[in-house]
Amino acid sequence: MGRGGGAVSSVLEELLAVLPSQVVSADDDVRAANAADVTGHLPGGPPAVVVFPETVEQVQTTLRVAHRLRVPVAVRGRGTGLAGGAAAPDAGIVLSTVRLNRIVSIDAVDQLAVVEPGVVTADLDRAAAEHGLRYAPDPASSEWSSIGGNIATNAGGLHCVKYGVTRESVLELEVVLADGSLLRTGHRTVKGVTGLDLVGLFVGSEGTLGVVVGAVVKLQPVPVATETLIAWADSTATAAAAVAAIMSSGGRPSVLELLDQATLQNIDGHSGTALAGQGDSLLLVQTDGWAADREADALLAVLAAAGADARKLSADEAETYVELRRSGRGPRPDLWTIGEDVAVPRSRLVEMIRTIEAIGQRHGLLVASVAHAGDGNLHPALSVAKRPGETAPPEVLRIAADELVRAALAVGGTISGEHGIGALKREWLADELGEPQLDLQRRIKAVFDPLGILSPDSFLAVTEERQLVP
Amino acid sequence: MGRGGGAVSSVLEELLAVLPSQVVSADDDVRAANAADVTGHLPGGPPAVVVFPETVEQVQTTLRVAHRLRVPVAVRGRGTGLAGGAAAPDAGIVLSTVRLNRIVSIDAVDQLAVVEPGVVTADLDRAAAEHGLRYAPDPASSEWSSIGGNIATNAGGLHCVKYGVTRESVLELEVVLADGSLLRTGHRTVKGVTGLDLVGLFVGSEGTLGVVVGAVVKLQPVPVATETLIAWADSTATAAAAVAAIMSSGGRPSVLELLDQATLQNIDGHSGTALAGQGDSLLLVQTDGWAADREADALLAVLAAAGADARKLSADEAETYVELRRSGRGPRPDLWTIGEDVAVPRSRLVEMIRTIEAIGQRHGLLVASVAHAGDGNLHPALSVAKRPGETAPPEVLRIAADELVRAALAVGGTISGEHGIGALKREWLADELGEPQLDLQRRIKAVFDPLGILSPDSFLAVTEERQLVP
Repeated sequence: MGRGGGAVSSVLEELLAVLPSQVVSADDDVRAANAADVTGHLPGGPPAVVVFPETVEQVQTTLRVAHRLRVPVAVRGRGTGLAGGAAAPDAGIVLSTVRLNRIVSIDAVDQLAVVEPGVVTADLDRAAAEHGLRYAPDPASSEWSSIGGNIATNAGGLHCVKYGVTRESVLELEVVLADGSLLRTGHRTVKGVTGLDLVGLFVGSEGTLGVVVGAVVKLQPVPVATETLIAWADSTATAAAAVAAIMSSGGRPSVLELLDQATLQNIDGHSGTALAGQGDSLLLVQTDGWAADREADALLAVLAAAGADARKLSADEAETYVELRRSGRGPRPDLWTIGEDVAVPRSRLVEMIRTIEAIGQRHGLLVASVAHAGDGNLHPALSVAKRPGETAPPEVLRIAADELVRAALAVGGTISGEHGIGALKREWLADELGEPQLDLQRRIKAVFDPLGILSPDSFLAVTEERQLVP
Repeated sequence: MGRGGGAVSSVLEELLAVLPSQVVSADDDVRAANAADVTGHLPGGPPAVVVFPETVEQVQTTLRVAHRLRVPVAVRGRGTGLAGGAAAPDAGIVLSTVRLNRIVSIDAVDQLAVVEPGVVTADLDRAAAEHGLRYAPDPASSEWSSIGGNIATNAGGLHCVKYGVTRESVLELEVVLADGSLLRTGHRTVKGVTGLDLVGLFVGSEGTLGVVVGAVVKLQPVPVATETLIAWADSTATAAAAVAAIMSSGGRPSVLELLDQATLQNIDGHSGTALAGQGDSLLLVQTDGWAADREADALLAVLAAAGADARKLSADEAETYVELRRSGRGPRPDLWTIGEDVAVPRSRLVEMIRTIEAIGQRHGLLVASVAHAGDGNLHPALSVAKRPGETAPPEVLRIAADELVRAALAVGGTISGEHGIGALKREWLADELGEPQLDLQRRIKAVFDPLGILSPDSFLAVTEERQLVP
């Protein structure tokens, strides 16, 4: 499936003929730096060209060239993806949105922001804060990931347990389609039912249907108060049971995170804290809004009844614990690690956690789990020590990950709670959707991208061996 | 476009050959009763046949016959639609979901319900209440409309200002496609990003993509407390300004309704109340949850600062006012009326209300407006007295409605906030979406329904004159 040097130089030449030279790069360093997301997944070689459009028109021009030449294109936000969704197509174009990074406007009365896709998520939140507002979805990567990437993956985060995932905050999208045409869809009103919901279709489509070049997103008032609790449990199962009790109590926590013993040890290892000795598993709980104090008191009682040792934190302590959770596990260069992302119905959380522990034991793996527990969304990391001279992760990791994903499906869960499918989870996609639905989704993609040039190796890939006509 | 009697009897015979006779009816009364929604819109004649499937398999069988014969099919819930979306296709099949009306299960831990489409919305809410839960979306029709119809139109309601529209409560769908095949899409977990979001595509698609035969919907804890306020304002503009102040205050009302003077007079007329003399316009506000009392107190202050005369209601009074709002305007057989449904950004609410009043004055019409004001969603009713012998509404009503819908678009609004497009708003669809997007939506429909048998005369209709091959 490799492409000849002639074809590559022709793509470069064609792009340089219609775009300013400063937005087109074929430098080896630039191509290498933009080839893969943080997973490093890159099935082919580096891209032929990286384009950094500075205007919507330049995105359209890039797609028109790609469409005419039938050259594959991967859209890249800030490259923080965890599913290989932004992996460069072999000898294709990477279209980076990093220079489309303006917050165009913030409307405090209508509580919305107009943004370009390359805006870093936390930057938008800070800009909104100047108006007493905030952008609620907060993936752990929010300081580094972009709104465009968040939209492409329908990103979750800590606050989603109360405020919903990215989809719930996107009102309107501007999208460049595969042929370079520009589509505006959705509406700035909080309600509206005109036509099919294409905004919902684009959110989470991981760059397979078009390139998001603008978005109108909802902002919300900054909560008038926030309270933070921590609770120690003697096992992850006890902690998970406490989570179920909280969610059944009528309280609506704005954060409900679970960290297991191995995760606490990792945090201690890179942060100099001493959490692991204080208990087996840690729950981090926040309440917010006008009744933050009352809800916190009620949840303290629920946690105690569930057998957890809970207490309120001061504002300073709270900031520390949230930051420790966000930074999560530190880098462990001595280990091969697969970071998983599955979600299960809350009622199956205890069972799923026990299953994960059993998988780890069976294969002799280290298991460290954090969970957006209120959502039933688990992030177990499966690790094994690197052996001298080993250059690739051992097969046992893949086998264990396969068992874990299938276990989530078996209890009515999903193979991805918030990271997306990309290329790395494609193998399980049909197990969840079924082949007929997958075929239907591919035919929907064909409506938007009849030549299949957008992210051809991502989750809607038809075959391993694609035929591209240069 | 009429179909011969031979074709009609052939459809009936083919259906009777594969379905139990008690689920198929060609009686004149049954056909007439199931031909139109409450708008009475029926461009052709009554349907050839009405089918009342009692199982998913019978829905599949019906669609297989229709597909083979290329007979058009309209899905009908409880017939409470306000956009002509369920209008029977000429000489086609009406597929009624009224007998698919089981609440299959309610899961209190995972806070979800498995339902068939014909379940009446308020019945689900009452069943959930036995578990301390509720189904949040509450269209004013909730005592008569069905979950399936609510899903088809992405119905809104009073609580949506805090709890979101129907889309936000639908987790998973079972859908029979045009060829009779069965698709299950979505996931029972509260988070999940596996593949394209087909649930979002089906919700609001008004029967054009498939027949929803089952749904898994989210339930939420019944709020621990609810407070209700009313506030009188000296004009609808003052009331609308107070709404904007509330929504900017950081409070999150669970109900925020506006009723203008003409609406209050209508209510007085059919309910024996004496509201109209108490003030020009009325706001009905609820807060709920752990801080219902604090939020209510805060909103009382906001309302007073905005120049409205506000007070708290007792629980009994609150029930009365909510019921009066839900029952809305009574029947007025002496008037021709068009009930509109537009939504505008909240910042344009005052302007839009003034525009509506000006349109009414210009054309000599009665205007009575209620609004889900917190959402910017307006329901102005435009009326004119019936003249003796007049058998159809005068053209002036249609002209005024056209001006009103275009005025909503001009301020960045949408042509339908929650009722849907159906057949009756089709003429404005391209004005909002643009022809390229409309074409894209039609091509998406063609993926699901290549022969165009589902709701062929609804919002995605290609031409006025369709060619159907029997």
